[in-house]
Amino acid sequence: MKIATYANARTTLEARKGVGKAFIAAFRSGSVMGFLLAAAGLLVLYITINVFKIYYKTEWEGLFEAITGYGLGGSSVALFGRVGGGIYTKAADVGADLVGKVEKNIPEDDPRNPAVIADNVGDNVGDIAGMGSDLFGSFAESSCAALVVASISSFGTTHDFTAMCFPLLISSMGIIVCLITTLFATDFYEITEVSQIEPTLKRQLLISTALMTLGILLVCYLAVPDTFTIYNLGNTPKEVKWWHLFFCVAVGLWAGLIIGYTTEYFTSNAYSPVRDVADSCRTGAATNVIFGLALGYKSVIIPIFAIAVAIYVSFALAVFYGIAVAALGMLSTIATGLAIDAYGPISDNAGGIAEMAGMSHHIRERTDALDAAGNTTAAIGKGFAIGSAALVSLALFGAYVSRASLQSVDVLSAKVFIGLIVGAMLPYWFSAMTMKSVGKAALSMVEEVRRQFNTIPGLMDGINDPDYATCVKISTDASIKEMIPPGALVMITPLVVGILFGVETLAGLLAGALVSGVQIAISASNTGGAWDNAKKYIEAGASEHARSLGPKGSDAHKAAVIGDTVGDPLKDTSGPSLNILIKLMAVESLVFAPFFAAHGGWLFKI
Amino acid sequence: MKIATYANARTTLEARKGVGKAFIAAFRSGSVMGFLLAAAGLLVLYITINVFKIYYKTEWEGLFEAITGYGLGGSSVALFGRVGGGIYTKAADVGADLVGKVEKNIPEDDPRNPAVIADNVGDNVGDIAGMGSDLFGSFAESSCAALVVASISSFGTTHDFTAMCFPLLISSMGIIVCLITTLFATDFYEITEVSQIEPTLKRQLLISTALMTLGILLVCYLAVPDTFTIYNLGNTPKEVKWWHLFFCVAVGLWAGLIIGYTTEYFTSNAYSPVRDVADSCRTGAATNVIFGLALGYKSVIIPIFAIAVAIYVSFALAVFYGIAVAALGMLSTIATGLAIDAYGPISDNAGGIAEMAGMSHHIRERTDALDAAGNTTAAIGKGFAIGSAALVSLALFGAYVSRASLQSVDVLSAKVFIGLIVGAMLPYWFSAMTMKSVGKAALSMVEEVRRQFNTIPGLMDGINDPDYATCVKISTDASIKEMIPPGALVMITPLVVGILFGVETLAGLLAGALVSGVQIAISASNTGGAWDNAKKYIEAGASEHARSLGPKGSDAHKAAVIGDTVGDPLKDTSGPSLNILIKLMAVESLVFAPFFAAHGGWLFKI
Repeated sequence: MKIATYANARTTLEARKGVGKAFIAAFRSGSVMGFLLAAAGLLVLYITINVFKIYYKTEWEGLFEAITGYGLGGSSVALFGRVGGGIYTKAADVGADLVGKVEKNIPEDDPRNPAVIADNVGDNVGDIAGMGSDLFGSFAESSCAALVVASISSFGTTHDFTAMCFPLLISSMGIIVCLITTLFATDFYEITEVSQIEPTLKRQLLISTALMTLGILLVCYLAVPDTFTIYNLGNTPKEVKWWHLFFCVAVGLWAGLIIGYTTEYFTSNAYSPVRDVADSCRTGAATNVIFGLALGYKSVIIPIFAIAVAIYVSFALAVFYGIAVAALGMLSTIATGLAIDAYGPISDNAGGIAEMAGMSHHIRERTDALDAAGNTTAAIGKGFAIGSAALVSLALFGAYVSRASLQSVDVLSAKVFIGLIVGAMLPYWFSAMTMKSVGKAALSMVEEVRRQFNTIPGLMDGINDPDYATCVKISTDASIKEMIPPGALVMITPLVVGILFGVETLAGLLAGALVSGVQIAISASNTGGAWDNAKKYIEAGASEHARSLGPKGSDAHKAAVIGDTVGDPLKDTSGPSLNILIKLMAVESLVFAPFFAAHGGWLFKI
Repeated sequence: MKIATYANARTTLEARKGVGKAFIAAFRSGSVMGFLLAAAGLLVLYITINVFKIYYKTEWEGLFEAITGYGLGGSSVALFGRVGGGIYTKAADVGADLVGKVEKNIPEDDPRNPAVIADNVGDNVGDIAGMGSDLFGSFAESSCAALVVASISSFGTTHDFTAMCFPLLISSMGIIVCLITTLFATDFYEITEVSQIEPTLKRQLLISTALMTLGILLVCYLAVPDTFTIYNLGNTPKEVKWWHLFFCVAVGLWAGLIIGYTTEYFTSNAYSPVRDVADSCRTGAATNVIFGLALGYKSVIIPIFAIAVAIYVSFALAVFYGIAVAALGMLSTIATGLAIDAYGPISDNAGGIAEMAGMSHHIRERTDALDAAGNTTAAIGKGFAIGSAALVSLALFGAYVSRASLQSVDVLSAKVFIGLIVGAMLPYWFSAMTMKSVGKAALSMVEEVRRQFNTIPGLMDGINDPDYATCVKISTDASIKEMIPPGALVMITPLVVGILFGVETLAGLLAGALVSGVQIAISASNTGGAWDNAKKYIEAGASEHARSLGPKGSDAHKAAVIGDTVGDPLKDTSGPSLNILIKLMAVESLVFAPFFAAHGGWLFKI
């Protein structure tokens, strides 16, 4: 977040020199954050393993089971970042917009608006810290899941430390590849026009994926034994060749690319889906909402097929170890993913600073242009986060099943089936909670902003400053307080189900939450992204069609604004928070699995 | 539908005499339809069984496998009724409203509106024929699933025809109970005020459930052997006592009541959820949409718990036979359910006829009052339909698994898991299709209505009649044509998956579609119902709070209208259509199970 704050200011300054310079500033700052996150996560994990080695010596099973705490820690922080951060940012955003823009008719990010600082802070809290902690949680958990499975496989029994560290080597190679990839955006080509930004960011994905495929091949060839065996749920261990492992990682990596490109297709206003949504504004807000929801539902299809293929291939080749390294493959280009994701909020905030500092309107125009591409790339980042969360949860699910000594999770057993159907319900319950939390937090912000406008004399004339600090405090307090019910649902459910219903029902619950949650998360974030860009499409008026819908303030534009407002909590709070729901429940179940297996299932014992 | 048409006219005439008489006319007509449906379904099934008996003699396994065709037939008709009917009614409704009410500013159901006949026909097609065929499909399928399982259990091997016909006896008892129940609404009490309607209809549910509980006890005691055995997925047959079966049926019946009451709580404007949604209109359409979506998500929780308990109890007592008879228990009061469901569209259309016939505005006011309670009861009917669809699909799933000779459906197998996650995606794909279909059909209706207003001279002055027939034709053609893509998705998916991926992946797919579809269906129909009643709440202005939001035409009311329009396709097309998706895929898989088991799974054989 500190980097983000610095990045905001720096981008503002560079925007004075032109779009290209501003883009480089925003993108480089995002990259630095991605690299720091990947490198720090990796380093701490490596040190932890080596410190534990001093204690556990060659008892690797115990060592790597202890490491699961790293994953649980990562995900718990992500709960604060994603859910709390999501509430923070949307409460501030909606509060600032509803009173400032709508009631008082002052521009966005106007320094007279008391919530403007909270809004800008919120972009960093929710979109940057939230996304970063979410992806970091995925990275930590998939590494841990892979290490746990590896420790009870032939890597562990033969004490082959290099092969054991294969998950870490993949991530290390990812950092190198992303470093090279970044140069393509900032040094090899120069951006001079706004229209080049989106293709450049999109190309980043392709370049990093292509280079990383070679990188994986190299790591697999050098670090993995020709043939080894992997724990296979109590059955005869599965024999795996080194190039099998290559395919496991690669299929995850490429599934990520497909998810990214699909997300871009459904959320960028360069393609027909968003333009159709924009066009539906012609007949009003209702059709806009219907078309947006239908777009989100439709955008689920290809990502789910990509995830299904990744699951099937990696599982067939290396059981749950394959799933875990497939997740790591998808996350290996995390630095690039974070760079293009953070780029949006950095540009957005840079514009906010320019506005508040009373700088030339040229600067604001340049940062706005940078931000337009940011919505699409943010949606791509969310797609990655969800896709990897699905794979990570499945890997954790595999590790849970192993630790709970379950030989099968049979849908034909009533115990499992009721878990499955209730699990599939949990994302709805959780979403209802987070959406309500945003609503309540936004309402208290609205009241405070109104109060300041009414009671501080000379505020509207710019004579007196508003009380920014109170608004920041409201967002902070609300986000922590409103986080409690959804947080409790996530943390308590596995405990209650494990203790009362036992490991089988809990297994069903995890599977149900996973297969249902991933769909809602993808559709919510794409619907929100599409509405946002449909509005931007009308505002920009770059084509004949867009101009026929505009300008700002037209009926179609008003309908688009309604869609955008509906989409805000969907794409920035309830949707991405579901990643945390499915991951945290899985990792918590993993940690408590032996306890539930020994002492759980009270209700069925009566 | 013929009855419905007659009922519409009769209710209009009775409305001249007062609210009480009109209520009795509407409710009696709905009841007659419910009784005819239940009785005819039962009679035809009984005759079919006896005719087949002549051919199959005592080879009962073959006989009752042949009967599955009855279920497939029932569901195929429901595909037309629900999906086609849903598109028909919403295309006409939206088309009539957008041009007539919004553009031309003429009242609803004004005879000058060319789409008015199509709109009224649509209420009968979608809300009555669609609901009827859906519930009939559920009844036919759960009966067939129960009969198939019974035929390979001790009933079948000992040729105990009375016990074999237990599912039919339950439904027969249901008809008797509902007959008595109906008298409570029309003869034992008299309705004199509008405010009595909703409690009366709600009491119908409670009375029928209480009486039916006694009825089930009687049937179980008289028709079921003291102890018998039930097929148990290849394991030792499960021993069941007669009173175990009583609990199986009763738990389904009471789960239905809980679902009904929960639905009422979340969709009636007598309680806080809908009032909160109405209140959110104060800050505009966006908050209305957000609150409505959150309400729908939240309304899923209790029904899913009720279904989970019903599944667990009935499965624990009598395996998949228990699930099938639990579904029949929920459906046993189908006549009452249909009566209170059909009551809404009948009252609505009665008002339409009064308007078109130029009758006194008192009559319209009375039918409008009747209709207000209709929205809630329609939502209750949908809740029943979805709940029973979930149980029926699970019973069919059990029958499918038996016929495909699967011993387990293990989520830990990649084949099953990819089925599960793709299955959970199908309801989204299907909903995206049906929502788009409504949009397209409504658009062509809008164009035709506009064309008629522009080209028929004297239409607005009432000198010349509009061309009603063309609008009816457009709705009819569009509903058939637009039904093809979603229909194809339902019909082709099990075939493709069964042939290419085999019976295990198909089992995962069915389970995934079931656990995910039921949530979307419940939330969509409750969200839509809540928005509709939030709008009605503001329009009626019956409380201090409601008046502060109104009157008609205020900003809050406009926001409520937007929510209502968004909700229309959700509650009348995409939501209820999901029942068909999950049931039809299951029954189709059941029919083809032996073929898939013998010849399917090509891709995995390579």
